[in-house]
Amino acid sequence: MVEATTRKRGRSGGGAARRAARGSAVVETARYIERNIPDLEILNEEALQIIEHNAETVLEEIGVNFVNNPGALERWRQAGAEIDGERVRIPRGLARKLCATAPSRFTQVARNPAKTVEIGGRNLVLAPVYGPPFVHDAEGGRRYATIDDFRNFVKLGQMSRWLHHSGGTVCEPTDVPVNKRHLDMLHAHMTLSDKPFMGSVTEPSRAQDSVDMCGVLFGEQFVQDNTVMTSLININSPLTFDDTMMGALEVYAANNQACIISPFIVGGAMAPVSVAGTLTQVLAEGLAGVAYSQLVRPGAPVIFGAFVTSIDMNSGAPTFGTPEAAQITYGAGQLARRLGLPFRSAGSFCGSKLPDAQAAYETANTLNNGLLAGVNFMLHACGWLEGGLVASYEKFVMDADQLGALHKMAAGVAVDESAQAMDALREVGPGGHYLGCAHTQAHFKTAFWRSELFDYKPFETWIEEGGRDTLTLASERVRKLLASYEQPSMDPATAEALDAFVAAKKASMPDSFM
Amino acid sequence: MVEATTRKRGRSGGGAARRAARGSAVVETARYIERNIPDLEILNEEALQIIEHNAETVLEEIGVNFVNNPGALERWRQAGAEIDGERVRIPRGLARKLCATAPSRFTQVARNPAKTVEIGGRNLVLAPVYGPPFVHDAEGGRRYATIDDFRNFVKLGQMSRWLHHSGGTVCEPTDVPVNKRHLDMLHAHMTLSDKPFMGSVTEPSRAQDSVDMCGVLFGEQFVQDNTVMTSLININSPLTFDDTMMGALEVYAANNQACIISPFIVGGAMAPVSVAGTLTQVLAEGLAGVAYSQLVRPGAPVIFGAFVTSIDMNSGAPTFGTPEAAQITYGAGQLARRLGLPFRSAGSFCGSKLPDAQAAYETANTLNNGLLAGVNFMLHACGWLEGGLVASYEKFVMDADQLGALHKMAAGVAVDESAQAMDALREVGPGGHYLGCAHTQAHFKTAFWRSELFDYKPFETWIEEGGRDTLTLASERVRKLLASYEQPSMDPATAEALDAFVAAKKASMPDSFM
Repeated sequence: MVEATTRKRGRSGGGAARRAARGSAVVETARYIERNIPDLEILNEEALQIIEHNAETVLEEIGVNFVNNPGALERWRQAGAEIDGERVRIPRGLARKLCATAPSRFTQVARNPAKTVEIGGRNLVLAPVYGPPFVHDAEGGRRYATIDDFRNFVKLGQMSRWLHHSGGTVCEPTDVPVNKRHLDMLHAHMTLSDKPFMGSVTEPSRAQDSVDMCGVLFGEQFVQDNTVMTSLININSPLTFDDTMMGALEVYAANNQACIISPFIVGGAMAPVSVAGTLTQVLAEGLAGVAYSQLVRPGAPVIFGAFVTSIDMNSGAPTFGTPEAAQITYGAGQLARRLGLPFRSAGSFCGSKLPDAQAAYETANTLNNGLLAGVNFMLHACGWLEGGLVASYEKFVMDADQLGALHKMAAGVAVDESAQAMDALREVGPGGHYLGCAHTQAHFKTAFWRSELFDYKPFETWIEEGGRDTLTLASERVRKLLASYEQPSMDPATAEALDAFVAAKKASMPDSFM
Repeated sequence: MVEATTRKRGRSGGGAARRAARGSAVVETARYIERNIPDLEILNEEALQIIEHNAETVLEEIGVNFVNNPGALERWRQAGAEIDGERVRIPRGLARKLCATAPSRFTQVARNPAKTVEIGGRNLVLAPVYGPPFVHDAEGGRRYATIDDFRNFVKLGQMSRWLHHSGGTVCEPTDVPVNKRHLDMLHAHMTLSDKPFMGSVTEPSRAQDSVDMCGVLFGEQFVQDNTVMTSLININSPLTFDDTMMGALEVYAANNQACIISPFIVGGAMAPVSVAGTLTQVLAEGLAGVAYSQLVRPGAPVIFGAFVTSIDMNSGAPTFGTPEAAQITYGAGQLARRLGLPFRSAGSFCGSKLPDAQAAYETANTLNNGLLAGVNFMLHACGWLEGGLVASYEKFVMDADQLGALHKMAAGVAVDESAQAMDALREVGPGGHYLGCAHTQAHFKTAFWRSELFDYKPFETWIEEGGRDTLTLASERVRKLLASYEQPSMDPATAEALDAFVAAKKASMPDSFM
């Protein structure tokens, strides 16, 4: 399937004619979600205070490690922390005080201004899966990801009505040298999509390359004045901040670019095997990380992240869509809101090896959880499979379809006169039928969310059409979307400059696969 | 698959020996859920007041029809309603006032006292799918349901740890005459399960048979003194109460047995194509129905029900797991709580023709919705397929597994000293590992919910074991559960009396398939 699509993409020319022949391929992107429903608050005030008190105790008594990073230790020393080797012990209240300069919301500008997003407040911005070394499709099964896969996923993201963000490492392009991948990945996001995107974090120098490429795309001064990237900085839980991630954070913060500062926790392995204990660690780590970003540059835009899931104690495997993971996400959202910080969590998480019923239960559990937990930035919102080892073509479009339902759910319930529908109730009366009444005729096209993927047909029609399951329908949708993809227009001089930047950077260093 | 199981069941004797050989087959049933998390309240006070005001306007101005039921019209007349033919117009406030005698919670006694349930308050009781004329299994596909299927589903329910209730028409035994089905169905629930169950509602005389059979099982006086059935009374939306359903309700209420009084609404067809309009109708219908139950017998136990979903305006098919259905369920829960009544809604709803990813997304959306909407009695909590036309063997065990996650989620977050895990945080410290620490060792067995169905193994192991999808795993689980089923013990005299009751009733009338 993917091979065929790649070949098709190779045929050039006649875009407008093709588009006319098959109908417009340009898919409008929905505005980011602005919630009009409350968050679910599962922790009461007493529980929140216990966890907040304990997190400060962790920072004060146990402390955190900033590894191989003398500059960070010096910043902490000057801020009033106690430094012992690489251990940083942070007096009670200091981290929270430092976090106060972080903005409660910020704007990430897209090259298409209509796709610029506001991160924070009651908003929810959806971004695709991040990081899988493998891809999976129904026809070819599971295999190492390539740059062609990467470009396909960027295109699918661009084509998704419900995805607001192009993401970052939608899959690892394992056929490109490790030290040059970030250039091809950023180039793909910048040229194949016009949605906002993420920068590289695998080396401070690659973060700088990301900033420089954004300078080419947006203009250097524009990048200093505006946030044009939101990048993912993971904490090495428990309580450890490594020099690679912190180095990338330092580059981004210094350049006014946003970072998600996020514990990466499988509870029971990297955190205590209890929800309250894990939340304590999440808060301690988030406080220390966000505080550090503000030591680098007060006011730097950051997101309080929580990638946390549970573990299967039989196999040691991480488990997804579980009740404990949901409880942690709900609780972390409450803690982030009390800090006044944008919150990142949840996603299309599943442990299943296939985009089957297990995957869908686990994912739906987590997507609903994320919506109701007040998540502001949802990375991995579609395409995640097998504990994040795999980006699935079919699951990408399945999940992306479900994201539409989140939009409608979040909009809340209208109670204006039209929505009250008293005219309809009076017109139809006992024993009547609403399908033909004036109110229904006026509103039926927009009243109810409708999947663009699922089969709603009667059994007999469904059988006549081949009795296809969701996986088969999703494969067909992937093919159709990639075949009808249209590249968003770009000023040719900018496109050439981006090509030249990538070519020059690649030429400046030998390939490395380490 | 099902055939094989049926044959196996035919072999009698040696139960204890078989049980010893394969390990205990007796599955403990979890206690009904007692929520320790809040409900999600998506309607604000203003919206609730608008809907409540409009519902009273509907009752007062439009009214409801009680069809072919002079007794009901007379009851309403004496209560102060205005009668016009079969139309009953209920003065503002009267229905709500009549509802006040309905208990806010009640006990449904099971023949195994350990499985007695409390319906109402913060509780959630889970019951299986109800009503499908078809069954589906992976091997045999879709076909008309038989009494053997019925018995299989009762057995699966008895074997499910997370199902508190045996339900009612788990599928329609289409090979049994219509006028005798209820006898075989009740006999199956009474003898193959020891969980609480539902009575027949397809004719007032069959409701009376249900009461009489309970008299045999529990003793006649016990039945008068205790609620031993909760039965499903649907309202013919919009705003119509037919004589069959009301006749059954009258029998149950007069005998102190519980009824779910429930609109059955596909929004856009049987109610306005808006959430607020549909909620108005749901409330009007619920008020009228519950009020009527209290006219029959003040204090009769009832549940305020809401079976409501959205419609696909392209095909006219009902759609499930949609955001509008969720909003209606959340709102209806708020309205029921303001009435002080137990609330029934949600279930393992899906429109998919297969237990595939579509089914799982739709179902997980609805199960989460039901938990957070404060549902007290969830009918259809497992096994529903294809808009309720089909009871699926595999989906029954998939959904039943997910119900375990609801239990854990509902339990909320412990913040006692052990859950705070400060000892673990101190023991492990930055860069350490929690798997071996004392706190993890003490708690790992019970800390995290674990699916009994899903595959958590690494990719390589999963491939070695055949790369099975969820459907395949579920088929295996169905086979295993049915093979290891053990009938709960019953006093032989009671068993004989039940057999005799059914035989005598069947002999008293000719078969009818109408």
